[in-house]
Amino acid sequence: MAERKPTITDVARTAGVSKGLVSFALNDKPGVSPETRKRILEVAGDLGWRPSLSARSLSTSTSYALGLVIRRKPEVISADPFFPAFIAGVESVLAEEGRALVLSVVPDAAAELRSYRTLAGDSRVDGVFLTDLRSNDARFGLLAELRLPAVALGRPDPAVPFPSVQLDDTHGIAQAVAHLADLGHSRIAHVAGDPHMMHGGRRRSSFNEAMREAGLEPGLIVETDFSAACGADATRMLLEKRRPPTAIVYANDPMAIAGLGVAQQRGLRVPADLSITGFDGTDISGYVFPALTTITSDPVEWGRVAARTLLRLIAEGTAESVELPPAALLVRASTGPPPSDRGTVAAHS
Amino acid sequence: MAERKPTITDVARTAGVSKGLVSFALNDKPGVSPETRKRILEVAGDLGWRPSLSARSLSTSTSYALGLVIRRKPEVISADPFFPAFIAGVESVLAEEGRALVLSVVPDAAAELRSYRTLAGDSRVDGVFLTDLRSNDARFGLLAELRLPAVALGRPDPAVPFPSVQLDDTHGIAQAVAHLADLGHSRIAHVAGDPHMMHGGRRRSSFNEAMREAGLEPGLIVETDFSAACGADATRMLLEKRRPPTAIVYANDPMAIAGLGVAQQRGLRVPADLSITGFDGTDISGYVFPALTTITSDPVEWGRVAARTLLRLIAEGTAESVELPPAALLVRASTGPPPSDRGTVAAHS
Repeated sequence: MAERKPTITDVARTAGVSKGLVSFALNDKPGVSPETRKRILEVAGDLGWRPSLSARSLSTSTSYALGLVIRRKPEVISADPFFPAFIAGVESVLAEEGRALVLSVVPDAAAELRSYRTLAGDSRVDGVFLTDLRSNDARFGLLAELRLPAVALGRPDPAVPFPSVQLDDTHGIAQAVAHLADLGHSRIAHVAGDPHMMHGGRRRSSFNEAMREAGLEPGLIVETDFSAACGADATRMLLEKRRPPTAIVYANDPMAIAGLGVAQQRGLRVPADLSITGFDGTDISGYVFPALTTITSDPVEWGRVAARTLLRLIAEGTAESVELPPAALLVRASTGPPPSDRGTVAAHS
Repeated sequence: MAERKPTITDVARTAGVSKGLVSFALNDKPGVSPETRKRILEVAGDLGWRPSLSARSLSTSTSYALGLVIRRKPEVISADPFFPAFIAGVESVLAEEGRALVLSVVPDAAAELRSYRTLAGDSRVDGVFLTDLRSNDARFGLLAELRLPAVALGRPDPAVPFPSVQLDDTHGIAQAVAHLADLGHSRIAHVAGDPHMMHGGRRRSSFNEAMREAGLEPGLIVETDFSAACGADATRMLLEKRRPPTAIVYANDPMAIAGLGVAQQRGLRVPADLSITGFDGTDISGYVFPALTTITSDPVEWGRVAARTLLRLIAEGTAESVELPPAALLVRASTGPPPSDRGTVAAHS
């Protein structure tokens, strides 16, 4: 028979104290007298006790929090509606379970790895969400070493040993371009997000592909930081071109709303003079005038499903990957046929 | 001379190992051999070592997380821009310090108290932000009992034993009403938020007071849940009155933007037919057309200052309360003189 690993029960029995007291002494908690702590530490040492996951659960009585490490500027949390919506989805599931979310915003890769180590090392979280998967991602090895359950967002490599919750938003951009091409547009521009952001890069490449598929010349692409200010600047720049686009596909709703404002300020009618599409189907996009044609990716639901998947993985040791319904085009009032002929745009307001 | 408390350095010297290894062994971390762990536990026991806050700091290199418990529906995080902006401000300070935010959304008072106990009991956070102060707040006693440092947001009772970070936003609403009264408006309505929310109640009562001070009849107040949908509904309801308001003061920017959309859809010109003011000075409010006159309360800065105050309180055991610059009116393009005469509003779009 293999030698049984000593447990907290063994330490308690040998030291003649309660399991609770052993747990407190071994977990650096106050309320244990120096003498008792000394005896417990000695007994634990004599028995060759080692902390284990189950001893940990005993000490904290329940696993409590999930972790989300975002490698971004903190302003992204308020500038782009994706993260608040995703976090709201996660919290809606955690609230039912009495759990919390540990949110860590880090500036670079080194800080990112440190953050996962801290989260795992002190058992601050029972599992993490993994955003912005990269090829040869240093986090994969680290998380395996830390034995920290993880659920990936997006499309991981088949070799990645985590379940993932995926939402195909390429479909949405492709549908927006197809919709505009069907309406007769050929000069379509894309105000893209930050190509280094999870969803920024994908939306950009799917735009290029959709233009090719529609048989159109490559459209102008302007990169931004996803902010409304950049969306407005990009729109002004595009509208001042000798041959401005007749339609602009924006990578998020705030930029599209800012673009709408710029167009209206220049006296352009939307959609008669310029068609506009947003992305994410934010609440407010349905309430501007004209209501925004947008792509509904439902990041709240993404957060909900990701949280449920991670909780299942933690509880059962395994969880299936989930493919959410793809982002879909929601046609509202900001898109229409292109103006029959239009050269230089003159402001007439 | 009083007996010096043994430190991790003493344990390391006596056991003949590094401080790091002692820290790992005493903090339940993997990577320490059973023999070494046994020796370290024995030495620690012999020396009468006790974990202390500084030992903890040594083991985790720094205290690590702050807590924010929000007693709200999780959707509030994405529906109202206040919380994402506040959280972004907090994270911008924590990111510099390599710390995380533990975010817990709870449905009721009992869950709220449980949440603080869990955060304190397992040393998951070193301090908490306290939102939505109530009179006879059960959290005050609990936090004192838990000895958990706390910083309050808003205006606590002088008896409350926590530093607070305050932002007077009554001033902003009063300025909006005064600005509209100066322009000649007398029929001013208020689309208020949820009176149970931290900022909802305050904005409502300051509206009433400002109307009295301007010598105007009490204005119509419509309560909402702060969502754009409710803002749109409230606007439609107000504009369908026999004598509709010539100006509407909204309790947040998304509702004001939705109100702008409703007015424009009905063929009203803003501000020629209807003046509109928002609240919070969100990014997007400057990019709609016409740009929104709003009240800049800067919740991002509120989050930053609250985080710095709490970190100081944790590090030094004391911190001064801070009064932020009051919310101020930012006059842009959505406010102007009232139409000279206007009865029933006819849609002519």
